[in-house]
Amino acid sequence: MISLNHLALKAIEPLVNDAEKYGVSVLKSEYGATIVDCGVKVPGSYGAGRLFAMGCLAGLADVAITSTTVGEHHLPTVWVAVDRQVEGCMASQYAGWAINKGGYFAMGSGPARALVSTENIFEHIGHKEKSDMALVCLESRKYPPDEVIDYICAKAGVAPENLTILIAPTGSIAGSVQIAARIVETAIHKMHELGFKLESILYGCGTCPIAPVTPDDMEAIGRTNDSVLYGGWAKVTVDCDDLTLKELVDRIPSCASKDYGKTFGELYRKYGDFYKIDPLLFSPAVIAVSNIGSGKTYRAGALNPDILSKSFFPG
Amino acid sequence: MISLNHLALKAIEPLVNDAEKYGVSVLKSEYGATIVDCGVKVPGSYGAGRLFAMGCLAGLADVAITSTTVGEHHLPTVWVAVDRQVEGCMASQYAGWAINKGGYFAMGSGPARALVSTENIFEHIGHKEKSDMALVCLESRKYPPDEVIDYICAKAGVAPENLTILIAPTGSIAGSVQIAARIVETAIHKMHELGFKLESILYGCGTCPIAPVTPDDMEAIGRTNDSVLYGGWAKVTVDCDDLTLKELVDRIPSCASKDYGKTFGELYRKYGDFYKIDPLLFSPAVIAVSNIGSGKTYRAGALNPDILSKSFFPG
Amino acid sequence: MISLNHLALKAIEPLVNDAEKYGVSVLKSEYGATIVDCGVKVPGSYGAGRLFAMGCLAGLADVAITSTTVGEHHLPTVWVAVDRQVEGCMASQYAGWAINKGGYFAMGSGPARALVSTENIFEHIGHKEKSDMALVCLESRKYPPDEVIDYICAKAGVAPENLTILIAPTGSIAGSVQIAARIVETAIHKMHELGFKLESILYGCGTCPIAPVTPDDMEAIGRTNDSVLYGGWAKVTVDCDDLTLKELVDRIPSCASKDYGKTFGELYRKYGDFYKIDPLLFSPAVIAVSNIGSGKTYRAGALNPDILSKSFFPG
Repeated sequence: MISLNHLALKAIEPLVNDAEKYGVSVLKSEYGATIVDCGVKVPGSYGAGRLFAMGCLAGLADVAITSTTVGEHHLPTVWVAVDRQVEGCMASQYAGWAINKGGYFAMGSGPARALVSTENIFEHIGHKEKSDMALVCLESRKYPPDEVIDYICAKAGVAPENLTILIAPTGSIAGSVQIAARIVETAIHKMHELGFKLESILYGCGTCPIAPVTPDDMEAIGRTNDSVLYGGWAKVTVDCDDLTLKELVDRIPSCASKDYGKTFGELYRKYGDFYKIDPLLFSPAVIAVSNIGSGKTYRAGALNPDILSKSFFPG
Repeated sequence: MISLNHLALKAIEPLVNDAEKYGVSVLKSEYGATIVDCGVKVPGSYGAGRLFAMGCLAGLADVAITSTTVGEHHLPTVWVAVDRQVEGCMASQYAGWAINKGGYFAMGSGPARALVSTENIFEHIGHKEKSDMALVCLESRKYPPDEVIDYICAKAGVAPENLTILIAPTGSIAGSVQIAARIVETAIHKMHELGFKLESILYGCGTCPIAPVTPDDMEAIGRTNDSVLYGGWAKVTVDCDDLTLKELVDRIPSCASKDYGKTFGELYRKYGDFYKIDPLLFSPAVIAVSNIGSGKTYRAGALNPDILSKSFFPG
Repeated sequence: MISLNHLALKAIEPLVNDAEKYGVSVLKSEYGATIVDCGVKVPGSYGAGRLFAMGCLAGLADVAITSTTVGEHHLPTVWVAVDRQVEGCMASQYAGWAINKGGYFAMGSGPARALVSTENIFEHIGHKEKSDMALVCLESRKYPPDEVIDYICAKAGVAPENLTILIAPTGSIAGSVQIAARIVETAIHKMHELGFKLESILYGCGTCPIAPVTPDDMEAIGRTNDSVLYGGWAKVTVDCDDLTLKELVDRIPSCASKDYGKTFGELYRKYGDFYKIDPLLFSPAVIAVSNIGSGKTYRAGALNPDILSKSFFPG
């Protein structure tokens, strides 16, 4: 069986070997863990974001940066084609590990999650990972202190010198890129939330605009979410019966949510609490599901350039 | 002189080395030939299709999967830029070898054709290949039996342990991708059929939507053809006189055929026989030919999203 | 500190190692300099152009060839994402070295410029290069004679056997591609001309159509310029105050020039002298500048498919 952690570490080798080229820095923690800073104290780059995303996806995808036009705007955009969706997106990329220790908090993603595997979602994932090496990806503006690194190592069952940490703030370019690269993951996570069986999902692809960077973390969270909700589309191929898809498809895209139609920032200001926003909002603007069992494709949703512009280019 | 077979085998190395990552399997036949199954008993992936296409093209191209919009549909699409068209497309990629032995039938493509070189088209190709290694690409839902493998080895003049076989059904994702990657080949093959000299052709590029997969092989053949005929464009650069191009260009795209305007499936049902469809139909929807001798560009044809939608998303 | 010359030579390794694949030839000069001919006596290819551009950019970018639609035309286009703009674009890619020796003339670009570093612009660039190896990129239809190679070596302070020369005429496919890949460089050079501080520039991206090849060098210069002026857009991320950007942005794109609205060929015929054309014309059609300090984006300009068509597809 493939090791997601080894594949991921191989995928990010250029980032570690050519750190200066990508505007990143590689540090060693007190006990020897490797920290690859992609945007905390360094500028990062598009390339750093692309490789960060490849690490999150355990190398099980092609991630490319290309261009798109949204309304009157020419924008850089992420294209991602995931070869093994459940392993790449669910066992690895999904940011399902809330690392909360000694006052430090960051959402953790990447294949180290498959070593911890205490999240509920692993009950639905066939992949069982054993690895002496681990990669964890953190969305944060602050390096994890030694205590947190120890905690991650203990959970993942690896020695500190065998742990690599990728870190980038939401509002950095690497952050914007790696979040846009979650477009397919967001689609299949929503399908999972709606009761669709993960084992029926084969491969997928999608594209999502790269949100302009901002120093305001809350604004960055808003823009990167809006890029998915209003600017992204995903296409996944599954093997199931048509009836299931016919009933499911309209419920997948973001427009199926009662909170659709406002920027994330407007919703946050309305509710005053991230967790009061309808969790079913978090899905691509457009979804297409092709059934390899029947040859039929089901689609729903539409891109919304107006709301995307409002989010990306306020005032 | 370059060896197309060695270049092709180098191009597909990631597929063989990281088989699980790409959702493919690597097998050995009774006498040691290597079979890389990209979609018969395994799901395959976009990446497997891309590398399958690179093998078909003997590595003489960049093949990328990206996105396009056809009418209201957001679709994955293949982008291909061929560096040496005659060798890459005609001596290697063109599916001109009908392998028909002991009840087994498959269309063969890839650089092994240049070792066999009994097809008529090789009279028009300068390339003469000598190689102890061979790569053949099969579009089929069934592994070739040992008898067929022996036959291929005998024709190509290689030992079984030096033969690599890529195989994917038409209706698999690798099949859809590798056929879409034939967009430039289809253009220059049509030009050849119309009497244009292959040696005048330099390099080319094009894009073609990836047909949604289907378990029905006939429907898959229809969709993958329609993606070229109604959704693909190619641009080739040649060195000839303008008069030749001026007279030729309108005859190149699919719309120059009397059978243009119906899906492949409709044509098949009308004629009841694949070989009764006008062979001149098989060409990209749009063609542009740039003449390096004069700096002029000649264009013809148009994309037809309505027919493409009818083919990809019926009923 | 990174060595731009070593990074560049690493980036072009495939071109040297697989010369035949890319339609290029690798020669040795009398005293051992390596000349990689990408379009003088050989056809070159899209791939050769892409790697030529990577060499110019010292490997500090992703360069990809993809497709775009301009008016009714489907065109190949260059996508470039520059990770370190000042080093990649200004210290390396900018064609600021007029090599004029013994009757031979060519514009020189590439990281060898950072070894010579006598151009005024190096007063504004932090990077100081020391390297025993050098790469210079020449836009010319004629190989440099030994005398010129000696001159380049003396200026760059390297032995001839440690000098690599990439060469392609403007009107070759490698020429068209590598010039299109200057879209971001053109933007930040214009910003520099307008007084913007280079050290405030972080990373950028852009896209620019690939001009159809032509045997007429003056027409080729016209088309490759028009592709930037009327068909290209760039987005750069900077760290400065909003007021500076607000005042600057409208002056950046080509439409800010009094000479905007005519093809380069028309302007050349009007003025009879390249140097009488407004130097401020040379800028992308569209520019967006995102400020990482504030999260705001400023934009100006528009694509102009009509003029681009007139330039690419005359009469």
